[in-house]
Amino acid sequence: MKDFSRLCIHTMTNKPWSLRQCVENYSNAGIKGISIWRNVLEGRDLKEAKKLLDDSPLEVVSLVRGGFFPSVEKKRRLNAIEDNLRAISQASILGAPLLVLVCGSDSNQSLDKSREQIREGILKILPYAMSAGVKLAIEPLHPMYSADRSAVNTLAQANKMTEEINSEFVGVAVDVYHLWWDAGLHDDIMRCGQNRKLFAFHVCDWNVLTGDFLNDRGLMGDGCINIPEIRSWVEEAGFKGFNEVEIFSEKYWKIDQFEYLEKIKNAYINFT
Amino acid sequence: MKDFSRLCIHTMTNKPWSLRQCVENYSNAGIKGISIWRNVLEGRDLKEAKKLLDDSPLEVVSLVRGGFFPSVEKKRRLNAIEDNLRAISQASILGAPLLVLVCGSDSNQSLDKSREQIREGILKILPYAMSAGVKLAIEPLHPMYSADRSAVNTLAQANKMTEEINSEFVGVAVDVYHLWWDAGLHDDIMRCGQNRKLFAFHVCDWNVLTGDFLNDRGLMGDGCINIPEIRSWVEEAGFKGFNEVEIFSEKYWKIDQFEYLEKIKNAYINFT
Repeated sequence: MKDFSRLCIHTMTNKPWSLRQCVENYSNAGIKGISIWRNVLEGRDLKEAKKLLDDSPLEVVSLVRGGFFPSVEKKRRLNAIEDNLRAISQASILGAPLLVLVCGSDSNQSLDKSREQIREGILKILPYAMSAGVKLAIEPLHPMYSADRSAVNTLAQANKMTEEINSEFVGVAVDVYHLWWDAGLHDDIMRCGQNRKLFAFHVCDWNVLTGDFLNDRGLMGDGCINIPEIRSWVEEAGFKGFNEVEIFSEKYWKIDQFEYLEKIKNAYINFT
Repeated sequence: MKDFSRLCIHTMTNKPWSLRQCVENYSNAGIKGISIWRNVLEGRDLKEAKKLLDDSPLEVVSLVRGGFFPSVEKKRRLNAIEDNLRAISQASILGAPLLVLVCGSDSNQSLDKSREQIREGILKILPYAMSAGVKLAIEPLHPMYSADRSAVNTLAQANKMTEEINSEFVGVAVDVYHLWWDAGLHDDIMRCGQNRKLFAFHVCDWNVLTGDFLNDRGLMGDGCINIPEIRSWVEEAGFKGFNEVEIFSEKYWKIDQFEYLEKIKNAYINFT
């Protein structure tokens, strides 16, 4: 990238920081966008958080995350719906135009059943999302999360689901970490782009010889994903939004977060 | 399963055992098939190994494994070809009708490039495989191995490659561990079955909350894969071969291997 005008960072990337620290430090570092994870909102007054954001130069790109719809237990499915409605409400109050959905999966039932419950869940929260002006992005997750985090594991599947739901409020989030391996990725990106369903683009890197299923993501340039190529596809598909840096990394969470922020900016310019 | 007539075990499943121990203990336990990993052949006289197998009631199902074709370095690609020729020779001497290919991936180049080199590699070893009467099975590996172990990560990709190569000596190995998450799996199994390209079927289980990328596979029933369903698809597709138990597991390698063999037999009857 040439500049930081489309750089957004997920608060979870700087997990040691509070929302206030993220807002202040991103602003001072010339970052333009912020995606807010719900953990940093816990125990906070949302209107105060909204004021904090309004007083900053940051654009709120998305709230992360809703989803986790499937369960063999009806009670849990109902709780998930309620939680998603709360998330939409939070997004609306904060002025986040998008709620990212990590769709969920219950290994006590078939993937097909989980996928059906995901579709049902989205349809249930959709009217409220529309009334609140909050779009929903289905984020397909890497197949290594099929058993516990998402039964939607390819962009092709997410595309199919958004096409079936057929609402301008339901699209997809493309995350290079989850999708880089897929031989059909270029075509699937074009397809959701054409359908105006490409709502978000997340970047990080795949560490060769990854050591942990969750928290060993790489900073752009650390690993083997050709991020500029995938970004070029996303742009070819008409996407003009932010490039969102979303990295879960025990390694980077341990280092000085200001130093890390500089590394992120450098990696963004040189490897994104 | 009703009986053990189609039960085959990979020697790597009982990693602590030598080839002789596997042959003797599988035979005594009423196992019918054995797939031989090349590590148990190291330092052994192959003709002696062949005699050991001939004197047992076991059928040799496959030799595991060839492949690892891609590399940015030409020298390494040539070495891989040589190693695959050696593997074919070993298979031929042992009377193994099939060599399983873990195709490889070099994260220093694109997946497309690795896939191209895989196809080239297979084409290079194919004449020798044909003359030796050894078939080759492309085993698509889970996308979590895209960076380092295989650039072929779905059965759809493996099918496409075998169709392009179009030889009765090149087919696929379906391993539930690698493919269970794929929404297209049923159709892809039917496709390779119709084309008479379904050469092998491997079983184990996906542990929910897997702790290690390599050696935390589950015994059938431990995890969340619906193995009987996938087996029924494989049989619907015309496959009549062995169900091969291939489990890498630090947990099970640590326990008494005779006790483990009983667990495998039980899991085979009840969860396969």
